[in-house]
Amino acid sequence: MRASVFVGTSLDGFIAREDGSLDFLPEGGGEPHGYDEFYASVDAVVVGRNTFDTVMTFDAWPYGATPVIVLSGRPLPPLPAGAVVERMTGEPPAIAAELAQRGVKHAYVDGGVTIQSFVRAGLIDRIIVTRVPVLIGKGIPLFGAVDGDVELRHVSTRSFPGGLVQSEYEVVRRMERRVK
Amino acid sequence: MRASVFVGTSLDGFIAREDGSLDFLPEGGGEPHGYDEFYASVDAVVVGRNTFDTVMTFDAWPYGATPVIVLSGRPLPPLPAGAVVERMTGEPPAIAAELAQRGVKHAYVDGGVTIQSFVRAGLIDRIIVTRVPVLIGKGIPLFGAVDGDVELRHVSTRSFPGGLVQSEYEVVRRMERRVK
Repeated sequence: MRASVFVGTSLDGFIAREDGSLDFLPEGGGEPHGYDEFYASVDAVVVGRNTFDTVMTFDAWPYGATPVIVLSGRPLPPLPAGAVVERMTGEPPAIAAELAQRGVKHAYVDGGVTIQSFVRAGLIDRIIVTRVPVLIGKGIPLFGAVDGDVELRHVSTRSFPGGLVQSEYEVVRRMERRVK
Repeated sequence: MRASVFVGTSLDGFIAREDGSLDFLPEGGGEPHGYDEFYASVDAVVVGRNTFDTVMTFDAWPYGATPVIVLSGRPLPPLPAGAVVERMTGEPPAIAAELAQRGVKHAYVDGGVTIQSFVRAGLIDRIIVTRVPVLIGKGIPLFGAVDGDVELRHVSTRSFPGGLVQSEYEVVRRMERRVK
């Protein structure tokens, strides 16, 4: 199974404000920047509870019929019609193994805590980050602590007329992981 | 006077490790990415004490004969031959006013604390950030707290074969500053 991150951040690296709000991102996602194409390539979504709770405040369920795994220790509220959601608990390697066992080929991992824990566990293959030209000073950071440097390979970068800059990176597995 | 930032960071936004070391940056600055051209356009350098102390550990003085202003409350050590260095103390607006009064046209502002305080004071006109494809997890961040969102205008982005991605932004003065 491959796992990817596709996320928008402020130039100073925040994916949301401290209260989870996304008001600094361009409305409706801004100019098209490949999200639909990316989303069409995934067959499961893995999000943390904070992201799920933010998504539940949206007017429409954004995940269509794609299965969504919510990592949370607490029961979920009633879900919108058509939403395919399952709650799981556990460490990233166990979650990834379970999804792979179910035949998931490409997981979309989202949310600050969840992205960080999957990156730290060496389970993210690709990171596509789209930067919005604003500094917000504080918030929920995209990246967090890692156990030693994580080497990446730059795949491509493109910028958009409205000011978005999108870079795609492949995670280079560290030697200690590669030899396992 | 214009003031610019030209800086390399890890993908997770750090300009140095916690101890000031820069070992995650490509050796010798990596492939040419416009630093020499940028440096030729500045007529003063403003750095904080931490950056100055790191620079003093380098084999060669990197600033040539360009005047360097070190923001520090402590006396400076003996300087390399040919270095033009002056210590100043004070808030960013006073420093900027003093430099402008001396006829400085384009200042290069460097160092985490110094960049952050000049950004917060609305004194930075241009930010050129070059990202290295690595996550280091912790260190000295490029950006810090701001008093309200700082809106930027994306000028241009280019990537380099070795994996560096460089984006240039212009700071859009906030309305409350513009009308003062």
